[in-house]
Amino acid sequence: MLGNFVYCNPTKLIFGPDALEGLGEELNKYGKRVMLIYGGGSIKKTGLYDKVIKTLAACGKTVVEDAGVMPNPTSVKLDEGAKIARENSVDFILAVGGGSVIDYAKAVSVSAYCEYDPWEKYFIRFEDVSCKIIPVGCVLTMVGTGSEMNGGSVITNHEQKLKIGHVFGENVFPKFAILNPELTFTLPKKQMVAGFFDIMSHILEQYFSGSDDNTSDYIMEGLLRSLIHSAKIAVRNPLDYEARSNIMWIATWALNTLVAKGKSTDWMVHMIGQAIGAYTDATHGMTLSAVSLAYYRYILPCAPEKFARYAVNVWGVNPQGKSLEEVGEEGLREMGRFMEEIGVAMHSSEVGVTEDIIPGIAKATLIMDGGYKILTTEEVEEILRASL
Amino acid sequence: MLGNFVYCNPTKLIFGPDALEGLGEELNKYGKRVMLIYGGGSIKKTGLYDKVIKTLAACGKTVVEDAGVMPNPTSVKLDEGAKIARENSVDFILAVGGGSVIDYAKAVSVSAYCEYDPWEKYFIRFEDVSCKIIPVGCVLTMVGTGSEMNGGSVITNHEQKLKIGHVFGENVFPKFAILNPELTFTLPKKQMVAGFFDIMSHILEQYFSGSDDNTSDYIMEGLLRSLIHSAKIAVRNPLDYEARSNIMWIATWALNTLVAKGKSTDWMVHMIGQAIGAYTDATHGMTLSAVSLAYYRYILPCAPEKFARYAVNVWGVNPQGKSLEEVGEEGLREMGRFMEEIGVAMHSSEVGVTEDIIPGIAKATLIMDGGYKILTTEEVEEILRASL
Repeated sequence: MLGNFVYCNPTKLIFGPDALEGLGEELNKYGKRVMLIYGGGSIKKTGLYDKVIKTLAACGKTVVEDAGVMPNPTSVKLDEGAKIARENSVDFILAVGGGSVIDYAKAVSVSAYCEYDPWEKYFIRFEDVSCKIIPVGCVLTMVGTGSEMNGGSVITNHEQKLKIGHVFGENVFPKFAILNPELTFTLPKKQMVAGFFDIMSHILEQYFSGSDDNTSDYIMEGLLRSLIHSAKIAVRNPLDYEARSNIMWIATWALNTLVAKGKSTDWMVHMIGQAIGAYTDATHGMTLSAVSLAYYRYILPCAPEKFARYAVNVWGVNPQGKSLEEVGEEGLREMGRFMEEIGVAMHSSEVGVTEDIIPGIAKATLIMDGGYKILTTEEVEEILRASL
Repeated sequence: MLGNFVYCNPTKLIFGPDALEGLGEELNKYGKRVMLIYGGGSIKKTGLYDKVIKTLAACGKTVVEDAGVMPNPTSVKLDEGAKIARENSVDFILAVGGGSVIDYAKAVSVSAYCEYDPWEKYFIRFEDVSCKIIPVGCVLTMVGTGSEMNGGSVITNHEQKLKIGHVFGENVFPKFAILNPELTFTLPKKQMVAGFFDIMSHILEQYFSGSDDNTSDYIMEGLLRSLIHSAKIAVRNPLDYEARSNIMWIATWALNTLVAKGKSTDWMVHMIGQAIGAYTDATHGMTLSAVSLAYYRYILPCAPEKFARYAVNVWGVNPQGKSLEEVGEEGLREMGRFMEEIGVAMHSSEVGVTEDIIPGIAKATLIMDGGYKILTTEEVEEILRASL
């Protein structure tokens, strides 16, 4: 049900093949000292780095760089980044990369002037920001996380074997996001499809929750159908602009708070996937795909109507003469066929899970209460074994 | 295709049964002198007026009132409102009402300090704002126009027999919108269903345009299915919170620029409907319903694939063994059945159109070029005759 909520999403999205041309105008709204954050250097190979540096120079900015953000950014790296931002008194943070880079940039923006240990404050105690926030903008090169239009940030603590996400308020949302679908063309296929599944999982985590039939469910069904349609095209031809642009747009709207309205939201697939990630450092989207079918098959009996609706409205399953559970199972089989077609991990063994680490992963899995069933740690173990 | 565009929608939406409690906090962000704009006084009967006045007083505001905004606000009224705003140097405009009241408030906000005749500048010459803009906020009491989260404003000039809309930029969007579905419960049924059809028409004007298969089409199919589902419930029980809240939410998202992305957009039904409105002063949504089926039947042969997709994905038509046009026609028949079920005007004769004024209405109809066919004035006449 659409009860009491506030929707406010001030991120300005500049979309399309010419989107980067809008970067200068946005940068001009902020101060002179810019911290440029990026990942492993692929943006240097593609020429994007040079274009961004040229724009920064044309805007008269002083640039301090923080490169080498890893796929699962760590709390150790975060402390270093916060120090760089603070010591250089940066006025603005420009993140160029995928979700990890933007997640990390947001974490730096609230950690530079944080009077406590940011890992402890934000990711263990889930506290609100109480210090000055450095504004962030981004140029997106990989789609999936939706980090470009939300307050989410996931950080990994290797010592504690924990990968935890914090959702910050709208004052931490990127001020702008440059979304050029062509910038995603050079991404390796494995990362591309992992991103596709990450998007699908974001939608499903929200869709499979709550008992009401509200507009968010209908919007999500539309987003899912568009995603499935375009993902099949993009896998055959990664240079198909229309498919890649649709997927970039879906990724943003899948996780910018819109479709969560009226939903309790589940996030158990992400909790299990993140626990796997903390153990194996596997690609985020692949950890999600590896456990999704096992999880949803386990959960199906708790909400057969919703799973049947999913099968019919998203996968086109014909419900005639079948029980709700049969229809729901057919939908999950169709989902499995799609996952095989695009080439994501189908089993958790593919992302490094072995019998011996299952108890540890299950123990590290945060248990959420927004889905159709509140799991026990034993049930998480059971799902992980079924997913092997 | 999702080409180059900017999406930025800064309106803060405060939704739900308790939404009005958020009004004070928003008002406190602006200056002391508030212009309160409303319509025919129904807000006094429902008690909403007293609640708003109490909040304004609690915030220490000086209030100047501008009541009596008519369903189709006129250019004469606009000149009066602009004068009130200017002479009282108001810091903020609070609109309490439906789309007409909010449309009018936005027009006042850009006309108070306009150095030219606002009707001529904005609605005849379609010029951008070049003067100071007074910020606007709103409390919505009737859904349909989507005016609460966009820059649209429709003004009628009776002398010139013209009803014209201007779409202003994001600096004219309401700063906030209070969306309490319960405030719409007291609306007379005729106005309620006219609003439902206005929403449907907003979506269809965008859906039936362009040749590409993009995510916006999928989102719109979801919005339409949710609207149809909830409208049927609301007509049987106008006090059904879930149905009314879904419809309020759909109305906002149908016309806040999101689903237009990648679409050329048509708007011919609105152009014909507005021309009828300028002649008959009929309820906006009813003028749209009265001509929609005649218009879409006329246009169907130009885009049979899209009409067939509409029939299948929105109305559940079984396409087997039928031509695209047959499937499309079946979809329009289903749409007609739905329109009869909710009780909107099915013929233009019901909204005051007669043979003798058809040439005048057709001549007053602005011809747009974003749909599947660029009409001639003769074709508009033909459609109007078919709709009688």
